[in-house]
Amino acid sequence: MTLPTTNLDALLSDLNGLDLITEPNQVAKLSQDYYHFSPVLTPQLKDKVGDVVIRPANEAEVLRVAQACVNYKIPLTVRGAGTGNYGQCIPLAGGVILDMTRMSAVKWMKPGLACVEPGAKLAAIDKQTRDIGWEIRMAPSTYRTATIGGFVGGGSGGIGSVTYGQLRDRGNLLAVRVVTMEDQPRAIELRGDDVYKVAHAYGTNGIITELEIPLAPAYPWTEIIVSFSDFMSAAQFGQTLSDADGMIKKLVCICPDPIPKYFAALKSYLPEGTHCAFLMISETCLEPLNEFVKDFKGTIVYQKSAQDASRGAAIAEYSWNHTTLHARSVDPTITYLQTLFPDDKNLQLLEHMYHHFGDEVMMHLEFLRYGGTARPASLQLVRYSTEERLNEIIKYHESKGAYIFNPHTYLIEDGGMKMVDTAQLQFKQKVDPYGLLNPGKMRAWLEKDGK
Amino acid sequence: MTLPTTNLDALLSDLNGLDLITEPNQVAKLSQDYYHFSPVLTPQLKDKVGDVVIRPANEAEVLRVAQACVNYKIPLTVRGAGTGNYGQCIPLAGGVILDMTRMSAVKWMKPGLACVEPGAKLAAIDKQTRDIGWEIRMAPSTYRTATIGGFVGGGSGGIGSVTYGQLRDRGNLLAVRVVTMEDQPRAIELRGDDVYKVAHAYGTNGIITELEIPLAPAYPWTEIIVSFSDFMSAAQFGQTLSDADGMIKKLVCICPDPIPKYFAALKSYLPEGTHCAFLMISETCLEPLNEFVKDFKGTIVYQKSAQDASRGAAIAEYSWNHTTLHARSVDPTITYLQTLFPDDKNLQLLEHMYHHFGDEVMMHLEFLRYGGTARPASLQLVRYSTEERLNEIIKYHESKGAYIFNPHTYLIEDGGMKMVDTAQLQFKQKVDPYGLLNPGKMRAWLEKDGK
Ligand SMILES: Cc1cc2nc3c(=O)[nH]c(=O)nc-3n(C[C@H](O)[C@H](O)[C@H](O)COP(=O)(O)OP(=O)(O)OC[C@H]3O[C@@H](n4cnc5c(N)ncnc54)[C@H](O)[C@@H]3O)c2cc1C
Ligand SMILES: Cc1cc2nc3c(=O)[nH]c(=O)nc-3n(C[C@H](O)[C@H](O)[C@H](O)COP(=O)(O)OP(=O)(O)OC[C@H]3O[C@@H](n4cnc5c(N)ncnc54)[C@H](O)[C@@H]3O)c2cc1C
Repeated sequence: MTLPTTNLDALLSDLNGLDLITEPNQVAKLSQDYYHFSPVLTPQLKDKVGDVVIRPANEAEVLRVAQACVNYKIPLTVRGAGTGNYGQCIPLAGGVILDMTRMSAVKWMKPGLACVEPGAKLAAIDKQTRDIGWEIRMAPSTYRTATIGGFVGGGSGGIGSVTYGQLRDRGNLLAVRVVTMEDQPRAIELRGDDVYKVAHAYGTNGIITELEIPLAPAYPWTEIIVSFSDFMSAAQFGQTLSDADGMIKKLVCICPDPIPKYFAALKSYLPEGTHCAFLMISETCLEPLNEFVKDFKGTIVYQKSAQDASRGAAIAEYSWNHTTLHARSVDPTITYLQTLFPDDKNLQLLEHMYHHFGDEVMMHLEFLRYGGTARPASLQLVRYSTEERLNEIIKYHESKGAYIFNPHTYLIEDGGMKMVDTAQLQFKQKVDPYGLLNPGKMRAWLEKDGK
Repeated sequence: MTLPTTNLDALLSDLNGLDLITEPNQVAKLSQDYYHFSPVLTPQLKDKVGDVVIRPANEAEVLRVAQACVNYKIPLTVRGAGTGNYGQCIPLAGGVILDMTRMSAVKWMKPGLACVEPGAKLAAIDKQTRDIGWEIRMAPSTYRTATIGGFVGGGSGGIGSVTYGQLRDRGNLLAVRVVTMEDQPRAIELRGDDVYKVAHAYGTNGIITELEIPLAPAYPWTEIIVSFSDFMSAAQFGQTLSDADGMIKKLVCICPDPIPKYFAALKSYLPEGTHCAFLMISETCLEPLNEFVKDFKGTIVYQKSAQDASRGAAIAEYSWNHTTLHARSVDPTITYLQTLFPDDKNLQLLEHMYHHFGDEVMMHLEFLRYGGTARPASLQLVRYSTEERLNEIIKYHESKGAYIFNPHTYLIEDGGMKMVDTAQLQFKQKVDPYGLLNPGKMRAWLEKDGK
């Protein structure tokens, strides 16, 4: 990358009147995300900073910023709450950090549907839509701080995915409005499959200024922890419950021993040495849930009603990548993997991996729907030694048929689908001809001229 | 069966003051259901009539009837709307027909849950619960006339099952209250797995007087018909849409050519010779639906918004066994099968059967969730020749791995699971020691003494 940032002064004077931050410490802080979960990414990203942070209040201001960046060929990296784990919003080539958090309105809502600005925090959206009995379908465990724009731009799924699949599934994102970085920037609306030109594009394909998202019925969610004395009972319980079509669920997370040890605040509930299931289940399903618990010889060790949801720990904040967060707060050398296990109700490969790696790769399961079936994804906790060993672990999983979404790369394609998304590339060629948006993150763009 | 019915006069005088019907034509009419869909059942059942119809107004009256029947050892057959297809409520041994349709109250409702009396019609329940934004999770296509007690007593699933599975899935029935036929009849409440002691027991295990049922969010359902030029595109479209976790759906029914020919009222919409998908989809999912339609080269030929739901044909009334109803109204020699195809996304066995039988067994698919996965069930239309040939067709399906739920038997076990449900049998021994409830329908009971 040798993009010029010299015209910064001209840009700043053009953008006079906007909410600008140039104070170096603040800019440095707003150039960070949670890439430090990865010991591989940390050395690559820790020194990257932007030159200025701009906090637009509305789409008109976004358009002004886009125009200025195009005029002076200055890179622009969009940022929500900066909770991404792969350095998605780290400005590799400096330039403008566009902080969207001031654009946080819920523009309208109706049963099943809402239109929101990108900087709206996920929890804040729910707070409003629950008034009419609805809530967002799925959220990362960073729900309280993360923005919807950042979730769509850099996330994939989470709490709720056991019912609705992931963001990439049709129906989970209905429309986006994006500002382009053409010679004359404009705002365009994408609907239908076109939304995937910007979803999970790490902000390389336009600046999202508005989103239309589907809502789910806001059931009264009971939070429950069930403990099991052996790993496979816990895992099978998770699979069976996830497969139970009559059970309304939002979270089926399995934290086998020793992971519960890392959860200090829940210590008194979690029996030493047990394997725990963390669940969010509709209140109406509690009686049938007991039958599943009985079948797998589990014990309910914690239960919090929907009414008490605001009190005490939220169990969702022990699930998904919060599991990693808690483990790392005890032992910062721990890192993680993201694995999709095959559709096999017997969970054989999972059982194999559990025993094969033992304490080095601690199993942590999140059930989610994938192509119409509930499957265990794993955000295993890895006791990190070297990058070489980490790659060995990844290769071993892949060789046995587990799919790894590598969280130790900041390239879009290398983390997920491992192939070039031609629709995304072609769209970028149109809307960001100068390659100014979050440069360095899209492999297809970097390699497009045969480089 | 040689149960005495001689004490009828004594019973009638004991039950003085209750709503009794003894007029022979009326009694004969209320001794019928829709077994005539089966040319095998018709000769076996057509002459069976009860002796008296009693229409209780409340549980206290049910208890009085139960006591009188026990006292005089008179058979009692419960009846909802009498829309069952397997003669479930045909009184094989005469006696009392207990018509539950006067007990039709919705006792209470709250988000996600309702408590209803057994004689409440399914559509009538929805009418009330929709006021608070909820509706029943699943219903047979006889939704407008069938009762909830009859659905739980003799049905299995239907419109809604593509999302919530079947009645037999935990969570889809929360509690039942039943009146027993012990020496001293009493009302008992069953919760959790205990509900399956009376669900789908054809009224042989107690008289349901109250049910607690879960509710689903009442989405604005759009009714859509999509036509396809080839069968496998239509079938694959159905599978893919049913597997789409982000799509909110209530009905995915595929009526291949020549079935649409039987739908006179929709004639102008359904292009000659095409294979049609009948869908109920949440309004919010219409745009992503278009993408699926495109993928499979379909054409939307009919669309009715939720707002217009009350106007014109309800497409649900062309699905499930209404498909058979319409075909039979044109050609009464047609009968049907009920088949569950294996979990195979390529639908190979289904394709094989489609070609193998050709016009003799006309494929008709209903997608439903079964153990966590969307699978095609088929209510094939069969051009009936002989019982022998029908059994040959059934055997052929079974030999290839398709599961047949035989609709040509009135025995509980022979229609469904083909094995004795010991919990049901044991429960019957307790609550109906004299075998008075709907005698002749439970094979396990008939054979219990080694007969
Ligand atoms: C403890 C922990 C747990 C997590 N759990 C999950 C989880 O369960 N599931 C999950 O998917 N993720 C998870 N994450 C990752 C992350 O928190 C989520 O993806 C979150 O939704 C990101 O939102 P954000 O506002 O922080 O986005 P940011 O990190 O600020 O941005 C993410 C990406 O989106 C782009 N972007 C942001 N706003 C826009 C916009 N307006 N237009 C275009 N592009 C934009 C950015 O450029 C960046 O590439 C977790 C992270 C942590 C630290
Ligand atoms: C055109 C057509 C389409 C159909 N589609 C479907 C479908 O999609 N799915 C499906 O599952 N079925 C279907 N059916 C079968 C039937 O309509 C349904 O199962 C319906 O729910 C039965 O309700 P009912 O009130 O008519 O019950 P009935 O036929 O009156 O009774 C059914 C059984 O339940 C028992 N019963 C009734 N009330 C009680 C009670 N209070 N306590 C204990 N037992 C009781 C009866 O003894 C009998 O054995 C269809 C039938 C037809 C004719």
